[in-house]
This record gives sequence, structure tokens and C-alpha cells, in this order.
Amino acid sequence: MRTICPPERLLLGPGPSNVHPRIYQALSSHIVGHMDPYFFEIMDETKDLLKRTFRTENELTLAISGTGMAGMEAVLCNIVEEGDEVVVCVNGFFGPRMTDIVRRLGARAVEVKEPWGKAVSLEALRDALSKCTRPKAVAVVNAETSTGVFQPLPEISRAAHERGAILVADTVTSLGGCELEVERMDIDIAYSGSQKCLNCPPGLSPITVNERAVELIRNRKTRVRSWYFDLLEILKYWSQARVYHHTAPISMVYALREALAIVEEEGLENRWIRHRRNREALEAGIEAMGLKMLAEERDKRLPTLTAVKVPKGIADTSLRKTLLDQFGIEIGGGLGELKGEILRIGTMGLNSSRRNVLLVLDALETALRKEGYGVRKGAGLQAAVASYDT
Amino acid sequence: MRTICPPERLLLGPGPSNVHPRIYQALSSHIVGHMDPYFFEIMDETKDLLKRTFRTENELTLAISGTGMAGMEAVLCNIVEEGDEVVVCVNGFFGPRMTDIVRRLGARAVEVKEPWGKAVSLEALRDALSKCTRPKAVAVVNAETSTGVFQPLPEISRAAHERGAILVADTVTSLGGCELEVERMDIDIAYSGSQKCLNCPPGLSPITVNERAVELIRNRKTRVRSWYFDLLEILKYWSQARVYHHTAPISMVYALREALAIVEEEGLENRWIRHRRNREALEAGIEAMGLKMLAEERDKRLPTLTAVKVPKGIADTSLRKTLLDQFGIEIGGGLGELKGEILRIGTMGLNSSRRNVLLVLDALETALRKEGYGVRKGAGLQAAVASYDT
Repeated sequence: MRTICPPERLLLGPGPSNVHPRIYQALSSHIVGHMDPYFFEIMDETKDLLKRTFRTENELTLAISGTGMAGMEAVLCNIVEEGDEVVVCVNGFFGPRMTDIVRRLGARAVEVKEPWGKAVSLEALRDALSKCTRPKAVAVVNAETSTGVFQPLPEISRAAHERGAILVADTVTSLGGCELEVERMDIDIAYSGSQKCLNCPPGLSPITVNERAVELIRNRKTRVRSWYFDLLEILKYWSQARVYHHTAPISMVYALREALAIVEEEGLENRWIRHRRNREALEAGIEAMGLKMLAEERDKRLPTLTAVKVPKGIADTSLRKTLLDQFGIEIGGGLGELKGEILRIGTMGLNSSRRNVLLVLDALETALRKEGYGVRKGAGLQAAVASYDT
Repeated sequence: MRTICPPERLLLGPGPSNVHPRIYQALSSHIVGHMDPYFFEIMDETKDLLKRTFRTENELTLAISGTGMAGMEAVLCNIVEEGDEVVVCVNGFFGPRMTDIVRRLGARAVEVKEPWGKAVSLEALRDALSKCTRPKAVAVVNAETSTGVFQPLPEISRAAHERGAILVADTVTSLGGCELEVERMDIDIAYSGSQKCLNCPPGLSPITVNERAVELIRNRKTRVRSWYFDLLEILKYWSQARVYHHTAPISMVYALREALAIVEEEGLENRWIRHRRNREALEAGIEAMGLKMLAEERDKRLPTLTAVKVPKGIADTSLRKTLLDQFGIEIGGGLGELKGEILRIGTMGLNSSRRNVLLVLDALETALRKEGYGVRKGAGLQAAVASYDT
């Protein structure tokens, strides 16, 4: 059979992002057994690094053996029991998924709806909470990959806690790229993905759960429906007890350890600044070409994913095809109700760089012109460079 | 931080087994997006190869984004609904896990128990089936990694079907190593793991589900409790519809494609013969050293995993430590009630070779002698070589 030899892509879509060469090296280091003393050392290093990346001391901090969506399911199925009430913030594609999971678990999901492209307001959340008898959790997406909207968490956390609910935050597109401090922001549970701002291949979901949430799990009236995602059982393997649960995805854990080491070396704050800096330049370039952002409020735009409205009369698929075929650049289209309406440009982890901002602006200009959209030559590049120089 | 540089191990335990160099290469090929046309080609190739490796035409044949245990949970949670009756064959460590999963799903698990080290008898199974009003499924482990016992499936399948139940088979340690023909043996659902006889790192679970079982899933009265493992939803992504479900673990899928290509190139029958041949030589060597197999019936011993009784008065941990520290060879100890009682030697995929049989026999002899166990020098090696020469 043919050798696997994938085309080289610059992955500036909603994720996965490109993988750091050091991470490929870790990924293809020879494996040892999942009960090997060497692997336990790597697990400990990974756990320590994860705590520092999440900014927490939570003992229940580990990587779920599945993709980001496995993390979403794992945390919800450990917390939610039949008959519980859960408030779910819905302002994009991923909120409804949480609702779906909550309902499959036999619980009541109370949705707080906002238009896609807006953050969830505190008033709407308080209103939803007031409709609950005893809300167990508030679930919210910190970085909505489908809309490019950033949802601030501290105020959501306070509102949840006032009603005795815990806060579950989807940080798939924020961990390692956006300001996120689990302990300071009083987030009870956060889950993420390996393939976004960490530049690891998809396949692992880092999670962290604080003592308040662990208490809730310990006090369940029924067993967790899922054996594979039973967090307290998984923790026995990810702690010094080392009780075998399932065969860990060794190579992916190597890769995640390396990814987190790279984050640590650069420093979290430096990364937050870098992501913000490059997003601003990208935004300046895009706006100079006359395009509009989906998220109107400037302070609610993600530093890791930029959602741009497709100009009227142009097919997003044509633009994306030009980028992919002519430039080898992948960007995303809209999901769900935004299908055909937006382009999604991810600048995550190592992909958040001056080089990539200029490359994608140049490619986008070419693609737009090909579709007959009038844009002054180099307008985007010029504005981006100007942004960097201020 | 330090570079990840794992010690080189010969992985002759219960899995993971060593990874083929070609698979490491595939694993570290640069990733593309999960909706990239190139990745769809790789998915199609993987699916075709999986069908041929499972010996089936089942449309629902794909890789679950999790380890082998994720496969177990995925198939059970799609089939089993609250109040259902499921017969679970328990003759080792992995049967009780199926029971656990079935019960977490709110169903009734009727166990067919046999001593660890024996296959499940048809009589005991029929007896259990007769205690059910309407058994929905029979769950059985084809290759019990905890005991080295091989469970023939065709007769189990007939007994299940006579009572209108489907057969769910755990083929984690058989796929690609033991005779397994899903269609000919009338197995309704089989799941496996990437890290055993396929020599891929752990992290994916190949599964196949026939039309009869798909019908059962379609006719559920309640929704599948798990969103992440909802097979009909996952199939939409693994078929031409290409509906995004979750971000596939790209690198691991590359690796699995390569692993299956290697199986295809050698030919399934050739692999079955090779595994059997090397197991026989290993067995001859072990018996020549005066050790006893756990599985008494010779025709019920796995070609992929050999469980050997630890001689009285010797600690299995000391033996394993010598093998690991002095020879860099990992073998397994006993799980659950067999803890301390047995050694488990895996000869899976590329690890099933004359070279490895000789290496592990030599190491084992040294380790045994170190513990004061009397064994004639080279007795094991001599018997193994003699076995190859017959």
C-alpha cells in the first residue's frame, strides 16, 4: 500500500493546529508499558505541568483518554444524575452539545440562550438560575470555537456559586492561549483539548476538578453511568496508587508532556500576550479589507479564533478551496446556523505568529479578489504590519 | 525540561506490544485537519482494511477514539437499555468489567462463571440463558488477556442466537493474531484495541457491528446515554456523509492505517500460523523448565498470550524485576485473583518471533535461577529450538 505522506498544511482553522516538531519527536519515541516506572514519571510530569497550565493545585488534574468532546462528556456524566437541574449557556455550536449530553443523562437542562456571536449576559444567566429549584451546575463555553466569542468566567462563577451550583467550563480553545486561571477565577471544573493552543495532535482531553466538585461526585446517589469516564477510578491510576484502569495512550501522553513543557518554557503570560498581539494584527488586516467580525464587542473576541463574516454573494467554500489548494492553508467555515456565513481563522499556540498572520491575509486577499470582491492590493498586510508597529 | 527518552523495552507483557518502525513513521507524519480530503482518504483506507482484518462487510466498522476499554463501553452502551437482560461470560478479569458496565447502564447482568483459566462451557451458557426472560445480548471475551484462555466463538454465537440474543465479543487480544472471522463465525459485534496484535500505540479501539445489531440500536426505546460513544452518530462521520462529530485523533488513525496495511501485506492466515508456531515453541520451552500453564486444556490456550504459573515460594515481582532491569523485557503479572500467581507473556504481532521466544526463555531461566529455582541450563531454549525444528 502507499506510504502515508500527507500534504503539508498550515492549519489555521478551528483546530487541530499544527504540531510542534518537538511534539512529533515525543510522539514517536518508543513506547513502554502503561505500568512501567518510566511512564509513571512521565504521567507525574504531565500532571504537574497541567496543574501549572490550568493554574490550579487540584489533585484531580489529568488527561482523559479521548478527544476534547470526551472531556465534555466525562465531566458532565460524573456530575450530573437523573433528575438534576443544569443550566447550560448556549451561544454557539458547543452549548447545545452540553444540553444534549445533560438530557441523555436524564437530567433537566435549562438553557440560557444568546445570539451566536454574543457572550452570555449575567442577567440572562441569573434569570435562568432563578427558574431552577436547586441548580447543580452551570455549564459554559469559555472560548466558543464556533463563533470566536470569549466568555469571561469570574462573574459567571460568582452567579453560579450564589445559587449553590458549580461551574463547568469548556476551555478547549482557551487553555494555553487565553487568560485562564482556574483557581483565581473559581472554576470548579475545566476540560480542554490537546489539539488547539497546545499544538499536540487531537486525542487527549486535559481536565481539572476542584475539591468542591469532587465532593459532589463522591456524594452521588447513583453510580456514574460510564465506566470509561469514571473520574475517581481514573484518578487512582493518575495518582500514586497506580491502580490499572485502562491502557493509557502512551504516545499521546508523551506528546502532551512535551506540549506542556513548551508552554512552560515560554511562560503562560507571554503566550497570552503573544496570542492577543497576533489576533489584533489579524483583525486590523481583515477590517482593512472591509470585512466584518461576527463578534461585535471587541473585548469579547477570542485571541485564538477569529470569526469573520463572509461578504454577501460570495461562497465561503470557494474562498476556503482557494486557500487550501493554492496556499495549503486550512481555515474553517461556519458550523450549524452559521454555515456559509462566516470564516473561522485559528491562531493557536505556535500558529499564532506574525508570519502566519501575514500569510493568511495575503491568501485571503487573493481568494476574495478571485471571487470578484473589490479590495485594494496589500491593504490587509499593510494594516497588519502597522498594527505590529504600534 | 528533560527530553523524553524512554528506556528501550521489549514489550512481552499483556500489551501494549512494541510498535513497528513503519507505524512510528506514520504516527509522526504531519497532521491535516479532520475534515481534510486527504484525511477522508486515510479514513476510507482504514475502514476497508479493518473490514478485511475483521473478515466482514459490515458498514459500521470503524475506530472508536479511545482505548480498547472505550470499545467495550461503546458497544455495550449502544446495545443495552435500562431493564435489559445481558448474559456475561466471566472467566477472567475482563468479564466482570462488562458486568460492571451493564449494571451501570441499569440493566440486569446474568453471569456465567467459570474458574479463571478455563473457557466458558456451552452448558453453563445455555443454563444462564434459560434463566433469562428475553436475553438481549451475550457478552464474551474471545481472548482473555488475564488468563491466556481462548474462547471459541461459533458455538457461543449459535447458543445466543437460538435465544434471540446477539453476540458481543471482546477481541482485544485476538484481532490480527488469532483466528477470527466475524462474518463466518456470526459475531454480531466485535471490538478490539490498537496496541496488541496490531502493534500500534494504545489509543484506538477498532469495532465492527453487523446489520442485526444495528437494527437493535435503531430500535432503542431510549437514546444512547453517551453522546461521545453514540455509534450511529460516529458512523455519519466515518461514512460518505462526513458529518462532523468530534475531532478525530488524526495521528493515531494514520498509525492504525499503517498497522492494518502491515497485517494485509503479511496475510491474516500467515499471521495466525506464525502466532501459533511461536506460542508452541514458547510453551515447549516453558514446560521444559518444569513450569505449568494456567490453562490446562491445550486447545484453549491463546497463541498471543501465555499465562504461566509462578512456582511456589517465588515472588512474581522478583522475576519480573530481573527481566525488566537486567534484560529490558517487560512481562506481566497476574490481575485480580491471580495476582502473584501467574506470569503473562505476550507474543503479539511483530513480537511473535523466534528471536523473542528465545530471548524471553533465556531471561526467564536466569531470573528463576536467581530465585533459587532449579533448572537445567538452556533447557528451555533447547526445547524451543526443537519445537521449531519439528
